[in-house]
Order: sequence, then C-alpha cells, then structure tokens
Amino acid sequence: MTDHFHMTPDEFRRHGRDVVEWVAAYMERVGELPIVSTLKPGEIRERLPEAAPEEPEPFAALLRDLDEVVLPGITHWQAPGWFAYFPANTSGPSVLAELVAAGLGAQGMLWATSPALTEIEAHVLDWLVDLLGLPQHFKTAVGPGGGVIQMSASDSTHLVHVVARERAIRGGASINDLVAYGSSQANSSVERGARVAGFSQVRLLDVDAALALRAGALRDAIEQDRAAGLVPAIVTSAVGTTGTGAVDPIADISGIAREHGLWHHVDAAWAGSAMLCEEQRPHQAGAEHADSYTFNPHKWLFTNFDCNVLWVADRAPLIASLSILPPYLRNVASESGEVIDYRDWHVPLGRRFRALKLWWVLRSYGAAGLRHHLREHITLATELGRRVDEHPRLERIAPVSFALVCFRHVDGNAATDALAAAINARPDLYVTPSAIGDTRFVRVAIGQTWTTADDVERLWKVITNAV
Amino acid sequence: MTDHFHMTPDEFRRHGRDVVEWVAAYMERVGELPIVSTLKPGEIRERLPEAAPEEPEPFAALLRDLDEVVLPGITHWQAPGWFAYFPANTSGPSVLAELVAAGLGAQGMLWATSPALTEIEAHVLDWLVDLLGLPQHFKTAVGPGGGVIQMSASDSTHLVHVVARERAIRGGASINDLVAYGSSQANSSVERGARVAGFSQVRLLDVDAALALRAGALRDAIEQDRAAGLVPAIVTSAVGTTGTGAVDPIADISGIAREHGLWHHVDAAWAGSAMLCEEQRPHQAGAEHADSYTFNPHKWLFTNFDCNVLWVADRAPLIASLSILPPYLRNVASESGEVIDYRDWHVPLGRRFRALKLWWVLRSYGAAGLRHHLREHITLATELGRRVDEHPRLERIAPVSFALVCFRHVDGNAATDALAAAINARPDLYVTPSAIGDTRFVRVAIGQTWTTADDVERLWKVITNAV
Repeated sequence: MTDHFHMTPDEFRRHGRDVVEWVAAYMERVGELPIVSTLKPGEIRERLPEAAPEEPEPFAALLRDLDEVVLPGITHWQAPGWFAYFPANTSGPSVLAELVAAGLGAQGMLWATSPALTEIEAHVLDWLVDLLGLPQHFKTAVGPGGGVIQMSASDSTHLVHVVARERAIRGGASINDLVAYGSSQANSSVERGARVAGFSQVRLLDVDAALALRAGALRDAIEQDRAAGLVPAIVTSAVGTTGTGAVDPIADISGIAREHGLWHHVDAAWAGSAMLCEEQRPHQAGAEHADSYTFNPHKWLFTNFDCNVLWVADRAPLIASLSILPPYLRNVASESGEVIDYRDWHVPLGRRFRALKLWWVLRSYGAAGLRHHLREHITLATELGRRVDEHPRLERIAPVSFALVCFRHVDGNAATDALAAAINARPDLYVTPSAIGDTRFVRVAIGQTWTTADDVERLWKVITNAV
Repeated sequence: MTDHFHMTPDEFRRHGRDVVEWVAAYMERVGELPIVSTLKPGEIRERLPEAAPEEPEPFAALLRDLDEVVLPGITHWQAPGWFAYFPANTSGPSVLAELVAAGLGAQGMLWATSPALTEIEAHVLDWLVDLLGLPQHFKTAVGPGGGVIQMSASDSTHLVHVVARERAIRGGASINDLVAYGSSQANSSVERGARVAGFSQVRLLDVDAALALRAGALRDAIEQDRAAGLVPAIVTSAVGTTGTGAVDPIADISGIAREHGLWHHVDAAWAGSAMLCEEQRPHQAGAEHADSYTFNPHKWLFTNFDCNVLWVADRAPLIASLSILPPYLRNVASESGEVIDYRDWHVPLGRRFRALKLWWVLRSYGAAGLRHHLREHITLATELGRRVDEHPRLERIAPVSFALVCFRHVDGNAATDALAAAINARPDLYVTPSAIGDTRFVRVAIGQTWTTADDVERLWKVITNAV
C-alpha cells in the first residue's frame, strides 16, 4: 500500500511496546545470566550473514536475534554481582530518557538548533555544582566558568590538555617544551590525552604509601623541568584513581599549580558522584581552585553511558581554543552573545540531548534518593574492607576508598590470582584482577544499580571459601 | 515497602509504554508543530527550579514537562519540512535500538567487556564497505584497515590529523613544521581538527567554479611549503562540502598525496550515504587510495545521532597513536591479538553499543529500501534544481549536488535574504541561509525521513510567491 520502507508511527507503537517488554524482562533476569560472555573471538561474526540484506527483514527477526546473537555476546554490566572495573550503572528513568532523546532526534550544536538541549544542560549542570559542593563560578549562570556534557572523561581530559597547550603557546612557549604531569596511578587517559594533544613530555610522578601523588614530587619535577628550559603546562590530580581509588592532595596541587602557572585539572571520573554526600567532600578540598573538574554520571550516578561532565573555572580559554564559525552556522542568537553554543565547548560539532537523562535521574531519585544509594554502596565497601582486615589470609593493598576495596592473598601473587579466578569462575560474580607494580590484587568496586548486601555477602562467601 | 529509590522493572514496563506512546504521538504530530522554537534566550531556564529536587518526583511530572518545558524549546529536526543544515534523519528501528542499547547498559571498551558490541560493529562496518563501494582492505575481516564508529565526523577528522602528525613525527619531522590542507570550502572541522591536533599551519586552498578544491592549488601549496622547509602531512578532501555539496577531485588528490607522502582523508560526512547507489560512486572515484574515509549514518541514513563511521586503510598507525594499556585493562583475549579492542581506535575509552542501531537500520530497510529513499531525495533535489533553473528570478550558485540545492535571487543579497526569511517565516518549512564570500544564498537539503514530494512542492510554492 505504501511506497516507503519506514516504520510507521503505529508500527513504532507496537514494536516499541515489545522492546520495552524485552528490556523490562532483561532487567528482571540479568541477575540470572552468566555475567561474562563465554564466546570465543569470532563466534558472533560467524552468526551474521556475509553481506547486508538486500530486502527488509521483519522486526520480529531483530528481536529474535537480540536473544540468539546479541545476548550470548554481552558481558552483563547491569548484573547485581558486577564488581568489576568501575560500574557503569544505569536506571529506568535514564534509559527512558535516552528513548525520548532518540525519538526527538534534535541536534544541539547551537543554542538555536534546539534551545531546550542547551538550557536544560546548562541548568542541570549548575544544579550539580551545588550537589557536589563545587564553587559557584563553575556555574554558567554565574561564570566565568561553566559545565558541558562530553562523551567520556578521556575526552574531557584530552580537551583540557589542548586548552592548557594553547594557553601556554599564547604565552610564548613552544609546543615541544610543554610538560604535562599526573601521578603514576593516573588513569591512562591522562597520558593518552596529553600525547594526543601533542605533549611530548608527560611525567607520571611518584606516589606515597596510599598511592596518592606526592606533592613534593610534583614541585621537584616542575622545578627541574623549568631549570631545563621546559614549560610545565598542566597537572591532573585524581579524586579516586582507577587502580585503587587513591585521592591526590588536591589543595596542595592547586597551590603548586597556581604558583607555577599550570592548569590544574581534577579527575573525579568515578568518585565525583560521592560528593553528593557532604561527608565525602573533604576528599576534594582544594578543587574550588582547580581550572577544570570532570566526573562521569555514567559510572556511579544511575545515568547510562555516555554522560561525562566537564566544568571549567573560566570558559573563555576553552571557547577560544575551539571556536571557528562558518557562515552556515551564523545566527542571531549566537551573535547576540546571550546564549551558549556548546559546539564551541568540545571537539565534536553535533550533540544529542544527553542532559535529558541526567535531568530525569536527578528528578526521579531526588538528591536524597541518590545519596541513599551512594551511602549504601560506601557502607557495603567499608564493611567488606573491615572483613578483609579481620581475615588472616587477606590484606588490603590500599585504604578502602569510597566504594572500592583492593586486597590480596597474604601468600602472594599466585594465591591472589587463584582467588580472583575462583570468584570469576562463578557465573554470578565478576571482579577485576589488577596489579600495582609487581603486586597482584583483587579489585572490588561496589556500585551497580541492583547490588545489595546479599550480593556482597555472596561474594564474601566465595572469597572465604577460596582463600 | 521497598528501601530503594530505583524504578522497578514493573514500573519501567508501565512508564516505558507511556514513553513509547509519547514518542509515537510525536512522530505523528511533528509535521504540525512550528519547526523552529520561538523561545528567547533564558526562557527554558526560567521554567526550571533553582535547585535540584531533594525528594523524588513522580514519573508523570517528567512526562508532563516533556510537553510543557521541553517541546517549546525543540527545533524539530524530524519535521517533514526540514530542509536546513544537513538532515539528522532517524527512524523507528534506530530509536528502538537506542532503547535496547541503553537498557543493556554494556560498555564495549574492550572486546572482552562485551564481545557482541565489538563484533557486530566490525561486521556491520564491513557490510557498509561493500554497500558504499569502498575497497576491501577497509574491512576488519580483510585488513590491514578497518572501520570504527565515532561520535561525529569532527572526531574522526581530528583523530586522523593526530595519526598523520604522529606518522610525520616518527619520520623525523618537528610538529611546528607540519602542514594540513583542505579547501576553502572544507567543513570547519578540518581547520578545527588540525588546530586541536596541534598543527600551526592549516592551508585552506582555492576552489574552482564548482567550488571544488583545485588539485593544482594543492600541488603548488605542497611544493611551496616543502621549499620553505615545512612538512606537508595531511590533506582532507570532500565528497560533498557542507556549504554547497561540492565534490573535490578525489583521484587527483590521492595521486598528489601519495607522491608527496601525505595522509589523504576523505570527508563524505553527508554524501557518503549516497554511495549506496552505484550510480553515485563515480563522485568518489579515487577514494580506494585514501588513507581514511568518514561518513555519518546519523545525517542521511535514518540512524539517529550519534553515529559516525571512520575507516582507515591501515589500522596500525591509528592504534600505535592511541594504545596505552594499564594493568586493569589487561585480559587474555586482548593479549592473544585475536580481537579488536576499539578503545585503541578513538580518544574516548568507554563506548556504548551504537552498532546496534546501524545493524537494525540496515536490516529493517534492507539495502534496497535505503537506496529507494536516497534516490527519492536525489530526484526531488534534481527536480527542484530544474525548477530553479527555469525560474527567471532565481539562479543556482552551484551545481545540484546529491540532494542539496543552493540558489539565490537574481536581484542579489538583500532579495535573497528576504526570500530565505519568507520561507523561514512559515512554521512548517526551514532552510539555512548561507554565503560563499559575499554571495548570499538559500540552501535546501532534502533528506528528512518524512519529507515527500508534497513537502518540496509546498516549499516551491512559498519560493515562487516570495520572489
């Protein structure tokens, strides 16, 4: 009857209900699926036809292949027994907001191409400034700083390296002389972001016994580099390193950065969410003097990937590094200077409506609901850490940090690896085995949406049986 | 009853049905809404509370605010009268795949963290190599090249500038001596990508009467730069510029690039989709010798933003520029070398399951269905161009290109601006006024999912009444 191949609104209505049912059922059964896919490399591709279909396939075939092709190849980040990496926790309101954003199909490169995308983003990130106890000048409504959603903390970290580079070059430095700093425990995105931004010198500095950056090591390195004619340009500090959740001395680093004219970037990718709880904020004391701060609601704030937030203390150098305005993007609102055009705040030009899910999560949980769950995860981790401390064959290799517990078998690396393997042999548990130098350890990150005390109890039983 | 604030699977089921209904109804009524939001800067923010809510809000409040707060601030990219910028067209299967991807909440930074995400992406991008008539070595299953999904063409273009920079530096060049080239009509992402990647020299070269890069200008610029001791590193050519859809002489540029050792990047962000139609492929002849090629299914292939594809002819220099492997990401599959870890193929570390929507779109439409719609858009544009040519008060300022028609009023800029204003005064039509040098023109891009001959007819009537 029709001369088109589009799914009509009525078909969308019908298939949409089936997909919602599929996702709801997935939420119900995810705890029963083996967390880690056991497929071998290439096994998914073998199930796919050699070439794209020439003719349309019915929607039922797509749904069928969700179960037959996709699910066996999924490692279930949303399982309650997920203690690996950091969580990428999500929630119903976030998932449904993603559906709405995709359905609207609006693109927010400019304020003018959909004002709601820009204004809700700017506003919700201002809300978060207060929720995380960050300084007022990080708010777009206050300035001169502001917040923007990016895809990942790696993007934000790369971007601030570019901005710091441009600032140093405007100050007369040569790009070849620039130096970026972080700790030896900094996320790999720090070294990578710096190198992608063209830094040829990246110093990953010594840490103390708690695996936090030694401020003295930073000061020494800056002074040595200056003496050698180099130009220290940026330092990244961590509130919660990826390896062990170590917290660098933010205030000391801010002081050193200001003294020597470095950009100070705070990477709170995971632990930033914990700052909703006032009692955690002493960990980031000094961040109010930082030039930029990033955290990922897509890790530990029930907002599905991707949703990274970057705040800058001053938006001018960011925009100066990125703004190029061709004629087809000119418009009255932009030229009035009254609006934010987020295309000038990151490398991509286009952007979808990611703020919607963050807005819906904050409203659906309320700040009180979010704090409740964050505190629950922190309490579960603290309790697990206490049990580790009391166990004669286990020892922590770092302080319990927020909701991360890192420990090893007292018998050493082989026993520790065996312990990790025993845990991961269970279909309903998953942890990340890791290492600091030559010390192997088991890393337990608590924060999946559906994780409860029962799941940690199950993990603990497996641990005590295995050691 | 419960001690948690999560939306339960049953609540998700219920609210999900309401959201599907809201989106389906939006699809039905989007043609009746005024395309461009008429809100003034700040009007959305005024509707939002000063601070985040402390207590949870009911889901009904979120849905209500979709209508009361969000919709008035949306510029409707999915309206059938959308002829602005390039389309960001979407479709039912794409939107529903986004829902599934969000619901699965899997994160594909490594093959091991969800093999299906990586293998379906690699496989579907191999399908597209054939669908677009690109060379076999762009396939991951053939090599040494391969494809990867990025967020935007800006990201891909930036990234290849980084890779070209690293290649030149490994060859002994200094970063300060590197030069990047494109045409004066290249998308702003070329200059921006080059500058973000640290190029201090970016040459935007002369174009011919059809607004395509003059190969002679490229050759001259390279020779002059070499004579001046500089190091030409990369040239970006366009199959379909953003301004007017101009097609650069890809084969000539490939030849010059090979002769002088430059990386050749082909930017087919919009027009790449047209290559599904074999008769369009002569426009990209020579792309088989390119080092990289990018196109956006999120522009003109019914796949909602974001979904950009980057292919490289050789994946080794890409991975060499980006690979840093910390201990917590080590795993057996990666170390076997048998798998792709897409985290090494772009700046971000994490990644969501964007391949799902591309897979669903290709299967739901079939290649035949996609070609049907692409050819329909091209036919509508060709017909509009013919009418413009026959009209005594209109003239094209460039050849009709794929589905883009650019024209002006013969009386000059003021009359042309008045024409654009008359079109955009209509709530059900939207075009982009633009300029090349001092020549103002009206830019009509045909390709929104729901656009039919009737919509173009309506546009034409407004044009003929206004001139």
